[in-house]
Amino acid sequence: MKARVFVMLKNGVLDPQGEAVRHALGSLGFDGVEGVRQGKVIELDLAEGSTEATVTEMCEKLLANTVIESYRVEMG
Amino acid sequence: MKARVFVMLKNGVLDPQGEAVRHALGSLGFDGVEGVRQGKVIELDLAEGSTEATVTEMCEKLLANTVIESYRVEMG
Repeated sequence: MKARVFVMLKNGVLDPQGEAVRHALGSLGFDGVEGVRQGKVIELDLAEGSTEATVTEMCEKLLANTVIESYRVEMG
Repeated sequence: MKARVFVMLKNGVLDPQGEAVRHALGSLGFDGVEGVRQGKVIELDLAEGSTEATVTEMCEKLLANTVIESYRVEMG
């Protein structure tokens, strides 16, 4: 079974990668880009019967730095 | 309005970051992790009236390296 984890920097945490993308889009002539935030998506291929609780534990222990990042788990 | 772009390495392209995560999860005692792929999620804050076609153009020109990466756009 598949699980997806989305990890984003929390609001208020500076996102230089996102800022760089915003500037680059402006330079390429894309107007109206008001903000860009860049995060990670981690696709996990898990053994059958794995639970969302396990994936949440993975996030807490490894996948996200919960001081500055928030995460969301999507199963299936 | 918001748009989200998901950028993943294409199948067959080596993903050392994903492999590192897989090993680390194993070391932490999480069994049954058969595969991990890591990608990017880019959240765009766009002016009203922006279209999916514009975001697709952003992907082609900047956000994804279409030689090795695939992308998916989600509006709204």
